[in-house]
Amino acid sequence: MSAPDANLAAKLAVALVHHPVLNRRGEEVTSSVTTIDVHDFARTCRTYGVKDLFIITPIKTQQRLVERLSRHWTEGYGAEFNPSRKEALTCVKVVDSLDDMIDNLKLAASAVTLVTTGAKRSEAVVGYSEARRVLEGDGRFALLFGTGHGLAPQVMNRAGLRLAPIEGADRFNHLPVRCAAAIILDRLLGPKN
Amino acid sequence: MSAPDANLAAKLAVALVHHPVLNRRGEEVTSSVTTIDVHDFARTCRTYGVKDLFIITPIKTQQRLVERLSRHWTEGYGAEFNPSRKEALTCVKVVDSLDDMIDNLKLAASAVTLVTTGAKRSEAVVGYSEARRVLEGDGRFALLFGTGHGLAPQVMNRAGLRLAPIEGADRFNHLPVRCAAAIILDRLLGPKN
Repeated sequence: MSAPDANLAAKLAVALVHHPVLNRRGEEVTSSVTTIDVHDFARTCRTYGVKDLFIITPIKTQQRLVERLSRHWTEGYGAEFNPSRKEALTCVKVVDSLDDMIDNLKLAASAVTLVTTGAKRSEAVVGYSEARRVLEGDGRFALLFGTGHGLAPQVMNRAGLRLAPIEGADRFNHLPVRCAAAIILDRLLGPKN
Repeated sequence: MSAPDANLAAKLAVALVHHPVLNRRGEEVTSSVTTIDVHDFARTCRTYGVKDLFIITPIKTQQRLVERLSRHWTEGYGAEFNPSRKEALTCVKVVDSLDDMIDNLKLAASAVTLVTTGAKRSEAVVGYSEARRVLEGDGRFALLFGTGHGLAPQVMNRAGLRLAPIEGADRFNHLPVRCAAAIILDRLLGPKN
């Protein structure tokens, strides 16, 4: 059995957060959307059976950029040229804020647990086997990835579950967010060895 | 214990192959270098302790592009601006061909086993736990990733080991190569759950 776990995937939403995140000086900012991240997150979510990918940004022009990109591949010329890309990008939903995402998810479940990710070490984090067991519980779960230099403390403080960082050799911790997301979805939803 | 396996990582090289690969019609071609792939592969290799990342292309202008990009981050302004990026990109080596890569690796070991990856299903593939056991053997191993629509048959035919594809939900198999590489290195070198 090497396909992703469909039961866990059905309960999990993924969010790529552009606000509030930190910049390199640790200040709270709104980051710009990187279109390749939207593509890569969508393709990875589709691979692991995750149906909801929220792109969170309060900036209207950035929202329109993501909507235009998605439409190109789901309705436009791109849909015919590359049907797999269409299939991937249908999971993309653009929302203003974390609370908008939660409202959206609450339509389908009574409880939404926020699951945070980050490169920083902390004592309050849980490992991946344990997180997998938590995902077997009730309600829905939203797995949050921060752009820029990571999720702001006000987001981390709302977490029901904080995932351990991906440990690099000699504590190197500078994975691209699109690669970190792929590894984390594989650890949470991929086949157990 | 959640750090990558340093013993296995020391024996493994990674290669991003631009020739010979297939295009969407299944013809053998040379693909263009995508600079974001060079960055992402370097950062993922550094995370997992892999010291040699080969960018394989016979096209001289493309080789110069990769060398210029690497130099910017390892010697130029970028090295000061972002020391982690410098650390990642020092593993990049540009070579003309698969055989050049093998010659380079043979300086350090008597035997080099080619390990291929790909999205296509086949009967001759091995799973990740088994591959991990093989990596414990003698010699060096080169893990090959194809750009475009994958490694050409002439490369697949030289494989000492063919890795199983990453199985997606409903057999969806369109991960970006940079995300597939991150997942595969985590499965081969990451912590065992």
